[in-house]
Order: sequence, then C-alpha cells, then structure tokens
Amino acid sequence: MFKAIVGASTFQDALDSVSVLVDECKIRLNEEELSIRAVDPANVGMVDLTLEAAAFESYEADGGVIGVNLARLEDIAGMANSGDLIHLELDEETRKLHIEIDGLSYTLALIDPDSIRQEPDIPDLDLASEIVVEGAQLDRGIKAADMVSDHIRLRVDETDEAFFIEAEGDTDDVNLKLDREDLIALTAGPADSLFSLDYLKDMNKAIPSDAEVTVELGEEFPVKLHYGFAEGLGNVTFMLAPRIQSD
Amino acid sequence: MFKAIVGASTFQDALDSVSVLVDECKIRLNEEELSIRAVDPANVGMVDLTLEAAAFESYEADGGVIGVNLARLEDIAGMANSGDLIHLELDEETRKLHIEIDGLSYTLALIDPDSIRQEPDIPDLDLASEIVVEGAQLDRGIKAADMVSDHIRLRVDETDEAFFIEAEGDTDDVNLKLDREDLIALTAGPADSLFSLDYLKDMNKAIPSDAEVTVELGEEFPVKLHYGFAEGLGNVTFMLAPRIQSD
Amino acid sequence: MFKAIVGASTFQDALDSVSVLVDECKIRLNEEELSIRAVDPANVGMVDLTLEAAAFESYEADGGVIGVNLARLEDIAGMANSGDLIHLELDEETRKLHIEIDGLSYTLALIDPDSIRQEPDIPDLDLASEIVVEGAQLDRGIKAADMVSDHIRLRVDETDEAFFIEAEGDTDDVNLKLDREDLIALTAGPADSLFSLDYLKDMNKAIPSDAEVTVELGEEFPVKLHYGFAEGLGNVTFMLAPRIQSD
Repeated sequence: MFKAIVGASTFQDALDSVSVLVDECKIRLNEEELSIRAVDPANVGMVDLTLEAAAFESYEADGGVIGVNLARLEDIAGMANSGDLIHLELDEETRKLHIEIDGLSYTLALIDPDSIRQEPDIPDLDLASEIVVEGAQLDRGIKAADMVSDHIRLRVDETDEAFFIEAEGDTDDVNLKLDREDLIALTAGPADSLFSLDYLKDMNKAIPSDAEVTVELGEEFPVKLHYGFAEGLGNVTFMLAPRIQSD
Repeated sequence: MFKAIVGASTFQDALDSVSVLVDECKIRLNEEELSIRAVDPANVGMVDLTLEAAAFESYEADGGVIGVNLARLEDIAGMANSGDLIHLELDEETRKLHIEIDGLSYTLALIDPDSIRQEPDIPDLDLASEIVVEGAQLDRGIKAADMVSDHIRLRVDETDEAFFIEAEGDTDDVNLKLDREDLIALTAGPADSLFSLDYLKDMNKAIPSDAEVTVELGEEFPVKLHYGFAEGLGNVTFMLAPRIQSD
Repeated sequence: MFKAIVGASTFQDALDSVSVLVDECKIRLNEEELSIRAVDPANVGMVDLTLEAAAFESYEADGGVIGVNLARLEDIAGMANSGDLIHLELDEETRKLHIEIDGLSYTLALIDPDSIRQEPDIPDLDLASEIVVEGAQLDRGIKAADMVSDHIRLRVDETDEAFFIEAEGDTDDVNLKLDREDLIALTAGPADSLFSLDYLKDMNKAIPSDAEVTVELGEEFPVKLHYGFAEGLGNVTFMLAPRIQSD
C-alpha cells in the first residue's frame, strides 16, 4: 500500500540524485520515509537517498518495495511545473504506479524488484577529514579538472588548513585551493585520494549549486558526499571508490 | 499584381502553420485575402490558412497564384525583429518576389505553381463534438502521449462531459482529462478517434500556447483543429485523417 | 618576465578576436602592450590585436614572446565570471603560464613559438572608402548573405552615398543598403570587392554587436575591419583578402 502527494521539485530532486548513477532502482516505501539505495554497474559509485514522510504533502506506506525505470519516471515528473503537486498511488494488483499531475494521469508499469541489481550496503567509514563546501565550489573544481584529466584528486592540507581539488594532465595542471574562509566548515586530518572524474561529474549534476555538501575524505579511501534538499527532509549520500594513485 | 506590407509576427505565424506540413506551397493572392491550402505527401494532414487583407498594413492583389519554398521564405521572415514590417512585392515579369525588411532586400525566385502538389479540398464534415481548448492544454496532452506511443486517441465522454487525450503504450498509459472547467467550451456528442502522433505533434508546433483551439471530433473520423491569430484576421484549419482503431 | 592581472571580459574579448582565425598563436608581451598577429592557414584572413598595459589592472612585461593553444586558454578564461580578475604569470624556467582565478590555479604548458606559423605583416593599404558601421548592422548583412551564397560583396555607391552588403545565389539575391543615416560615418570612394563568406562569418563572431566597426574598402582589394574594446584600450584589425569577381 502506497499513496502520496509530493511537490514536483522535491520529487524531481530526489529522482535526479539516483538517475545520475543507475537506470533502474528499487524504491523502498517505508512507513516513515521513501528510500533508495543503488550502485552503478561497475560498483564504483553508490547513492543512498531518503525522503522523509514530512517532505510530502501526504504520505501513506507500509514497507513495500517497487522497481522503477528512472528515466521514465523522471520524464513524467518533468511534465509537472515547479509549483504542481504529483499524486502517486500504487496498484498492488496490477503492479502499476498511478501518477497524476493536474488532470494528467500516467500509469507506469513497474519492474520486478528481484530483477534489479541488489542494493548496496553503504559502509560506515571513519574518514579523517570532513569538509563542508558549497555545491558551486565543488562544481568549479570539477569543471576545471575536466579540462586536463580523467581523474581528480581531493586532498586536505592540515598545515594550510585547506581543501584542494586537483588534476594533472599530460601537459597542464589545475588546482583549486579552498581555505577556511572559502569553506563552510573544515575538520582537517590526513586525507588524499584520487577519483574517476566521470563519476564525480555525474554526481555533481545532481548536487544543487547552493547545497551545503559535506565531504568525508581519507587516505586512498572512498569519498562520501552528503547533502540535503527539500528543507532538510531529503538526504542524499554519494559514495565513490578511489582510484589507486600510481607514482 | 501583388504588393503588401505586413507585421513580421503575423507573417511568421501564417507561414509556420503551413511549413509544419509541407516544404512548398501555392499562395493565392486574392483581392480580399491571402490564402494557402496544402496537404502533406501522404495525404494524411491538411492545412487551410487565410490571412485577411485587414491583417496587413497595406494589401493590393488581384487573384494571382505564386509557388514558394516555405523554408526559404521563413528564413527571410526570420531576419525581421518582431516589431519590423515586411514589404512584399511580386515582379510579374521575372516571377520573383521582392521582400524588404528595414533596408534589407531579398529577391526570392518563385516555383512554378503547376509543379506543386494540388491543393486539397477540405471537406465539410458534420462532427458530433466540438471542444474549445487552450493551445497549452493540447500541448500538454500531446507531450504526455509522446512518452508512451506513436498514436494518440482523442475522445469525448458525454456522461462525464469531458474531453480525453489518451495514449496506450506497450506497458504504460497516459490520459489527460479536461472537463468543462478546464475547457473554454464543450459541445459533447459521440466522438472517439485515433490519430498518428507525428502529425499532431507537427501541427501542435504551429499552434500558439495561448490560442483558443476549436477541435471538431467524431467517431473514427478526421479531426479538425481551428485557431485564429493576428487578432482573428488570420485563420488556420488543420485536418488530420484518423488511424483505424484495431482491437 | 611577464606578470599581469586583467578583467575576465577584457581578456576573453581579446582571445576571441584571434581564436576565430587560428588555433595557436604567438603572444608578444611588450613593455607597453600585449599584442598578437596571426594569419589563417590559407593566408586569407589576418588579425592584429593590441591590448594596452592600461587595459590591465596591473601589467609587467619585458618583450618576451610565448606560444599558446588558444582554445585551451579560452576554456580557462571561460572559468571566470565576468567580474572576476585573471592573474597571469610566466614561469621562464618551466615555460609554463600560471593562471589564477579566485583560488583556481591553472598551469598551462606553452608551445614553442618557433613551431607556430610566422606572424603576418599587415600591409598599409590606401583604400578609397571608409565606412563606420555598428557591429549589429554588419551581422545582419552577413546573416542575410549566408542564406543565398558562399560569397559576399561589399561596395560603396558614391552617388547614392551608401554602403551595400550583397550576395547573389543561384536563384535568390540579397542586398542590404546602409545609407548615411544608417551609418556612423562614411567617406565614399570607388570601392567594390567580393569576399569569402566563411571568413567574414568567423570574424563577425568576434565583433560585439554594439562595436563601432571601421570598414576600409577598395576595388578588388582586401578589406580591413577595425574595432576597439575594453574602452578603447584594446584594438582589433581584421584583414581579409578578396575573391576575384568573375563575370
């Protein structure tokens, strides 16, 4: 049983954060929240999304799981204007999701959840550095890195008390230095890891430029990127596996 | 003999309604109005456009017929800003159309009208339902239908007193219900027909989103879409043949 | 030795004027100004750019020459917002250019200047007509000509006291007449030359629509297009070789 009404922007933001990594996903319709966990086919990038019941205009669910085609669901949500409400209702018998937006009804065939890649367990990691940075700054570093390389290095300099986004190309290098003044918060510890730029670019697409992004970073460890949306009632955590730094 | 001055937007709107269906057309330069009738190569979609002499700043014509390349004529009209006036003058001897927009002169070679597909007769049809709907609502239904199918069903439910735009895909369905409240006017009668979405999408491109579109609809009959522009001095009627509904 | 700070828009405008013609160029870092001269591979179009020291926030140079990949340098400059300052500093030892924009550092590998096509000498020409015209008018004539031909004819009619931008296609012709009233200034003399439209379109991309462009024109002679930017502290001269007019 699932029946909910949600603002179009909130629903679109939620879907965006998952669709940058996977085409299909399971949606858990828990009593207290809607949640999605997914990992990309190469097991490199993961996402953990929760949208609390309070983020909806109304929300009733009893713990079911549905499988959806995300591109399709995003297209439908995209038919709504930003102020519109999206009505969602699960038909348990036909296994279809009824979506209604201001007179427009859409019947979405669901995917058997068992046919969808298993949800990942996103591990607790004890990462030495925590950086809180504006989405727009991350975006700037990622765009610059993309000019010279396929990889991006994130590191914290404890002495400088600064967060660095860096990339080394064959001939050119880029380096964005964000010190305490540029950051919202910084807990500096040993942290230096290399990542695939493609994945970070995809994740970055979902991060609003005005979001406060918490970056948890270690030494050749996965990075976690966390941000909230829908006035904090929606929460996204991305986790990205590191590339081995060769010398 | 043909000599006229017309506002750029009026002329562009007129050309748009025809160019969505055909590449070349005959333009009838009647004393009282400019008119175009055309049918697409597959004989599925027709357009009937009239632009009254009063829609022009000045208009002199004596019943001639010219053949034009529409894409070319639209490109030229597109050089004008929305407030500009477009001067048109036919050179009978060279069979060229002189077009002048704020110092810019364009000499357009005409096409022999006899080489252009014959103008269709758009039949009078006695269709049971007449729906008057905003262009923006039609657009919404057509966009939604396009997500799931190549066909679109238009029907009126006499009991519900509502107009439905529907599409059935392999797995998903969409349905836009517009009742009396959503419509500008409704004369409900038995009406239910299926159409090729490609054609309706093309016609929809020409329909301004704030136009009042009169839809005449029957049972497995062609649909007529009628709207005015240029403060009612321009009139467009599209007619689209139905697809047979298989069960 | 080279060290300078410059507003992002000024630097971007300067680079744009050269990158429309060539991919790589030499930049002369003179004491009083930065300057670039370049010619396209076919020796048809040339550009001469100077940006005075006063156009920079600060400028120190001693006459060196560097070779740069323009697309790369434009991408970097494009990371700046219009109000940002771009810091430039040459590392003589590594032959790299350090570029810094609000915390973002970019190290650009330079190209050996000797490997770059030789800088052209832009000849003094005694051209009979001088037309001063708004960039937007040139743009209009070039766009219209592009609808019918690959060539464009520029001429001055001394009797009419007007500047004409014309093109002849296989079937259609265009003609933009700009008389004294439409022009900023006109010194009329015998002037009538044909040019490749591709080159003029490229040059036109760099010309701001509100620029005052001085066009020097003769009889089957190259045309010179001159305009200023950065409040007159930046100056661009394009020179374009004529096509022979066949009859």
